[in-house]
Amino acid sequence: MALTTAQLQELAEAQSARAETRRPTVPALEKMLFEALPVLDHGFVRVIDYMGDDAAVVQAARVSYGRGTRAANEDRGLIRYLMRHWHSTPFEMCEVKFHVKLPIFVARQWIRHRTANVNEYSARYSIMDREFYIPAPEQLAAQSSSNRQGRGDILQGAEAEEVMALLRRDASQTYDHYAQMLNEGEDGQPADPSRQGLARELARMNLTLNTYTQWYWKTDLHNLLHFLRLRADPHAQYEIRVYAEAMMQVLEAWVPTVAEAFRDYRLGAATLSSQMLAVTRRLLAGEAVEQAGSGLSKREWRELMEMLGRPV
Amino acid sequence: MALTTAQLQELAEAQSARAETRRPTVPALEKMLFEALPVLDHGFVRVIDYMGDDAAVVQAARVSYGRGTRAANEDRGLIRYLMRHWHSTPFEMCEVKFHVKLPIFVARQWIRHRTANVNEYSARYSIMDREFYIPAPEQLAAQSSSNRQGRGDILQGAEAEEVMALLRRDASQTYDHYAQMLNEGEDGQPADPSRQGLARELARMNLTLNTYTQWYWKTDLHNLLHFLRLRADPHAQYEIRVYAEAMMQVLEAWVPTVAEAFRDYRLGAATLSSQMLAVTRRLLAGEAVEQAGSGLSKREWRELMEMLGRPV
Amino acid sequence: MALTTAQLQELAEAQSARAETRRPTVPALEKMLFEALPVLDHGFVRVIDYMGDDAAVVQAARVSYGRGTRAANEDRGLIRYLMRHWHSTPFEMCEVKFHVKLPIFVARQWIRHRTANVNEYSARYSIMDREFYIPAPEQLAAQSSSNRQGRGDILQGAEAEEVMALLRRDASQTYDHYAQMLNEGEDGQPADPSRQGLARELARMNLTLNTYTQWYWKTDLHNLLHFLRLRADPHAQYEIRVYAEAMMQVLEAWVPTVAEAFRDYRLGAATLSSQMLAVTRRLLAGEAVEQAGSGLSKREWRELMEMLGRPV
Amino acid sequence: MALTTAQLQELAEAQSARAETRRPTVPALEKMLFEALPVLDHGFVRVIDYMGDDAAVVQAARVSYGRGTRAANEDRGLIRYLMRHWHSTPFEMCEVKFHVKLPIFVARQWIRHRTANVNEYSARYSIMDREFYIPAPEQLAAQSSSNRQGRGDILQGAEAEEVMALLRRDASQTYDHYAQMLNEGEDGQPADPSRQGLARELARMNLTLNTYTQWYWKTDLHNLLHFLRLRADPHAQYEIRVYAEAMMQVLEAWVPTVAEAFRDYRLGAATLSSQMLAVTRRLLAGEAVEQAGSGLSKREWRELMEMLGRPV
Repeated sequence: MALTTAQLQELAEAQSARAETRRPTVPALEKMLFEALPVLDHGFVRVIDYMGDDAAVVQAARVSYGRGTRAANEDRGLIRYLMRHWHSTPFEMCEVKFHVKLPIFVARQWIRHRTANVNEYSARYSIMDREFYIPAPEQLAAQSSSNRQGRGDILQGAEAEEVMALLRRDASQTYDHYAQMLNEGEDGQPADPSRQGLARELARMNLTLNTYTQWYWKTDLHNLLHFLRLRADPHAQYEIRVYAEAMMQVLEAWVPTVAEAFRDYRLGAATLSSQMLAVTRRLLAGEAVEQAGSGLSKREWRELMEMLGRPV
Repeated sequence: MALTTAQLQELAEAQSARAETRRPTVPALEKMLFEALPVLDHGFVRVIDYMGDDAAVVQAARVSYGRGTRAANEDRGLIRYLMRHWHSTPFEMCEVKFHVKLPIFVARQWIRHRTANVNEYSARYSIMDREFYIPAPEQLAAQSSSNRQGRGDILQGAEAEEVMALLRRDASQTYDHYAQMLNEGEDGQPADPSRQGLARELARMNLTLNTYTQWYWKTDLHNLLHFLRLRADPHAQYEIRVYAEAMMQVLEAWVPTVAEAFRDYRLGAATLSSQMLAVTRRLLAGEAVEQAGSGLSKREWRELMEMLGRPV
Repeated sequence: MALTTAQLQELAEAQSARAETRRPTVPALEKMLFEALPVLDHGFVRVIDYMGDDAAVVQAARVSYGRGTRAANEDRGLIRYLMRHWHSTPFEMCEVKFHVKLPIFVARQWIRHRTANVNEYSARYSIMDREFYIPAPEQLAAQSSSNRQGRGDILQGAEAEEVMALLRRDASQTYDHYAQMLNEGEDGQPADPSRQGLARELARMNLTLNTYTQWYWKTDLHNLLHFLRLRADPHAQYEIRVYAEAMMQVLEAWVPTVAEAFRDYRLGAATLSSQMLAVTRRLLAGEAVEQAGSGLSKREWRELMEMLGRPV
Repeated sequence: MALTTAQLQELAEAQSARAETRRPTVPALEKMLFEALPVLDHGFVRVIDYMGDDAAVVQAARVSYGRGTRAANEDRGLIRYLMRHWHSTPFEMCEVKFHVKLPIFVARQWIRHRTANVNEYSARYSIMDREFYIPAPEQLAAQSSSNRQGRGDILQGAEAEEVMALLRRDASQTYDHYAQMLNEGEDGQPADPSRQGLARELARMNLTLNTYTQWYWKTDLHNLLHFLRLRADPHAQYEIRVYAEAMMQVLEAWVPTVAEAFRDYRLGAATLSSQMLAVTRRLLAGEAVEQAGSGLSKREWRELMEMLGRPV
C-alpha cells in the first residue's frame, strides 16, 4: 500500500510543479500542499488539492443576499454572522481533497460521515502493506468505569507489557499468514510454485483491524467543519481525534477567518436546553437553585455547571 | 440581480489576477475562466473555479486499485474502462463551480438534481432585476400531439404573434406591479413617501416563472456527467438543454479524455433490455422477427429499431 | 392539479382500507392518515405513509450500543440523551411521506432541503389548476426597516387594498392567458380549432410564483427535525412556517417522546459562543459587564441578553 | 453481538404482534417480516420494516405527471416505462429497513453505498461476539490469473487445508486475546481482578476482518435497486453477492412488478457504447466485421460478442 515508485515520482513532480492560475489561491496552504502531516505511528494526512478560500464563502453569500449585504461591509463580520446563524450553503462553496493513511478501525468510524467522496486502496485488487497501528504506551488505557465509550487510567506494568506484546504478535502473525496464503513473490510469481495462492479478496479477511489502509477523501468546507466538530471534540476516540487535529492545522492555513469563527461558535460553544436556560436565568436572578427541582437530570446538571464554570 | 459595481470590480480583479499554484491546472479551462457563455436571451453559464483534471481521475483510481493497475499503463484506457464499467468514485474527485443565470422555471427543473451545492440569489433579501425569458420565434412550439412532454410544430402567424405579445405584456406588467408594491426608489428610500411598501418576501410572488434568477452551482464531475446525460439529451426541454450544451463546452476544455469517454459510453450509447438483446440476437442469426411475438411493446420495438438503424 | 376523480377514488379506498400488519403502528397517527391539514388559503399537508415510531429510535440505538445500553433502562431517557448529544442515525430509522399543496415560491424555499425524496406535479406534462395564494389582510406586511429578511408593520388602508387588488388581478390575468395560450378544451380538444396551442412546457412560464403546486415529500425523521428547526423558527417566512407548524402536529402524534425532546433541546434551546459563555460566567460571578469590553458585537450582545432574559 | 435476551423478547413480541393499519400493506412481505434469511456461515438478512408497494410507485408517478398519465392506464406498463427511462424519483417513494449480520470486510464494501441510513453495532461501546466467517471449501478460490479482482480455480488438497486451518486459528487466537485484554467476566466484573482490562475501543483493533458485525440498514427502493444492480452482479465478490441475492427475494415479495422490470431492464440488460452500436449495425447489415478495424479494444470486442451471443 506504500506508494509505488511511479506514484512517488508523480508526487515529486506535483510538488515541484508551478503553474499560473486565475483561481483563488491561498499561499499559506500552497506551502503545505502534498506534505504529509504525521499522525499516529504510521499514518498521515496531506492536502492534495483545494478549491476556494475565505473570500469564496463571502462571495457565495453575496450572490444569495445580493444588494442585501451592502451593509455587511466587512468580510469577517459576514463570515461570523453566517457561522452563528448556521447558514451552511456558503461554506459548501469551498472544497478540499486529502490523502489519508489510517488504521482500518479508524476508517470504519470515519466513513460514517457519508457526505464526502472517497477512493480507498482496494485489498480486493492489491496487496496490503505490512503496517499496523500499535498504541504508544501513554495511550494504552483501561476501560473507563464511568463512561462506556471512554478510557480510564493508563495501563501499567505487566498488564501494559502483555497487551502490547499481544497486539504486536497477533498483527505480525496474521499478516504473515496473509502473505503466505497469497503466495505472491516480489516478482508477481508464486513464492512457492507448488501452491496456487488464495484470492486477494479472500486472504484480506485474515488481517486485523489495526492494519493501515489509505484513501483520498474529498469534502466541502461545511461538511469538513461538521466532521471536525464531532471528531476534534474531547469525547471523540483519541485515534480519530489526532487526524481531526491535523486537519485543523490545514483549516487554519486555508480559511483562517472561517477557522476563527468555527472555534468561537462551534468548538468553544455550548448548547443550552430550554430547561438549562431557565436554570441559568434563575441563577442570574440570584436564586439558589439545586439539581433537585431544577428540571435537569443529574447528568445534565453536571454538564450545565461545567459550562457555567461553577462547582457541581 | 445584475452584479453590483462592487461585484463586477471583484470579477475584473479575479480575471486579471495571476497566481502561482502547485495544484493541477488546466490551461484550456483557465482561458474560459470567469467568461460568460451566453445562453437563451439573457442567461449565461460561466466557470468560477475548478478542482482536478483528467489526471486526477486516474490518480484516484490508482489509489483504489494500487499496484493492481500497473498494467493499465495508459491513462486514456483507464478512464474509458472506468466509464464503461460505471465506476463513479474516481470521477467524484474533480469539482467545478459555475455561476449561472437562468429563468426560474428552468431553475426549478435543475434543482431536482440534489447532489450539488447551490447559493441562489434571494428575492427575500433583495430586489429582482427586470429581466425575463421570451422564447425566440423558432422555439415557440405547439404541444406535441404524440408526446405529452414534447413539442410539436412551430406556431405561425397570428397565433405566434399573440403568444409572444401575451408573454411580453404579462411579464412586464407583473414586474411593474412588483416594483410598485415594493415602493423602493433608486436610493433605497420610498418611491412614494405616502406608502410603506410591501415586504420583498411577499412582493416576489407576483413575478412570473420566466423571470431570471442566478446562482452559484458547484458539483463533482460524476454528478455533472449525470446531469449532462439527462439534460444534454434530445428529450430534455430545450430551455435547459442549451445550458447543458454550454456546460459540455466546459467539459471538453476541462477534462477532454473524460469528455470523449462520456460521449462514447453515455451520450452515444444505448441500453438494451433483456428482451431487446434477445431480439437482436435473433436478427443477427438471420431470423425474421416481427414486433408481434418479439416480447417488445410497440414503443419498445420502435426504440430498438431506431437504435439498430433499421426501418420500423 | 386538483386530484382526478380516479385519484380521489383511490384515496377514499385508502382511507377506508384496513389491513393487518406486524409493523410498528402508531394509532394516533393512523387517525390523521390521509387527512388534509389546511394551510394558507388553498394549501394542505397530509401524511400518506410512515415507518417506525418512538420505539424504532430506541431499537436502532440499542443495536448500535448493544449491551452498552443495558443501564439506560428507560426509553425516554435514551431518546433525550440521543437528542442532547446530536446523535443523528437512530432518528434516521423512521420515515414519513407527506402530500403537500403549496405556492411555488414556498416550494422553491422548501426544496433547498436536499435530503428528501420529492415527486412534484409536472407543469411540463399537465395543466396547472387555477389556484393562487393571496395573503390574508393581517399578513400583508411592509418590509422591515431593521431586518432585510423580515416583515414590519401591517399595511393599512389604500395601500393594502391596492396591493391586494394587484396580486389578485395579475394572478388571474396571467392564468387566463396561460389557458388561452394552451388552447385546450375540457375534452382535450382545441378550445379554438383555428389555433394549435402552445406547448405546456412553455406556457407555464407565464404563471406567477404564487400559483399552487403539489408534491409528495418523503424524509427521514432526522431530516424532518432539521427542516422543522429551521422552518418552525420565528425567523422563517410566515408562508413556510405555517407548513412546519402543521407538520409539528404530525410529529406530536407520530413520535411524542422525540417531539418532546426536540422542543426541549432544539426549538427551545440556545447556542452560546465561547465569548457568550465567558460573559455569562462573569455575570454569574457578579461582575457588571457592559457590551463594550464584552467581546461581543452589539447584535450578539442583544441576542445574549434576550437568551438570558435580561434587559438590553 | 448476538441479540440480548431482552432484544429477542422484543422481537418475539414484534413477530406475534398484529395491528390494524390504513397504510399500504404487502401480505407476501408481512409473512417474511422479522424472519432471518441465512447468508454465509453465520450471517443473515431480515426485513424489519417497510413503507410502500408497487402501487406507491405508480401513485407517485401520477402525482408528477398528473392528468398526463390518464392514457397509461395500466400500472405494470407505467412501472416498466419508468424503469426503462431511468426515472428515479417514483422509486424513492418506497423504503425498507433490514437487519443484517455480516463479516466486517463485507460491511466495508457495503458501506460505500452512501445513500442509506445505518446503525451499526458499536465495538467501542460493547463487546463483539466470538463469530467469524470461514469460507466453505467450494469458495476457497485462487487468485484469478486473468482478472485482478476475480477468483480462479478452487484450492485443493494440502493448500486448501492449510488455508482453512490458518483462517480458523488466527481468528480464534486474535479473539481470545481480545477477550483476555478486555478482562471482562460474564458478570461485568474483571475476569482477573489483578488487571484493569484494556478499553473496548482499543481492544477491538486486535480482531480480524472476518469477524461478524451487524447493523440496521434502511434505504429507499431506488437506491436498493442500485445496490442490487452492482452487488447481485456476477462480477461482485461472492461474499456480498449472497446478501444481494437474499435481498432479491425480499424484492420479489415486496414489489413484484418493480422486481420484474428490474430484471428485464437492469440485471438482464446491456449498455452498448456508440462504437458497439455501430458494429452491431454493420453486422446486421451483413458486413463481416473483425475486431481490428471495429473501433473496439479487444476487451470491448469480447464483451460485445458475449452480449450478442456470438463466438469471439
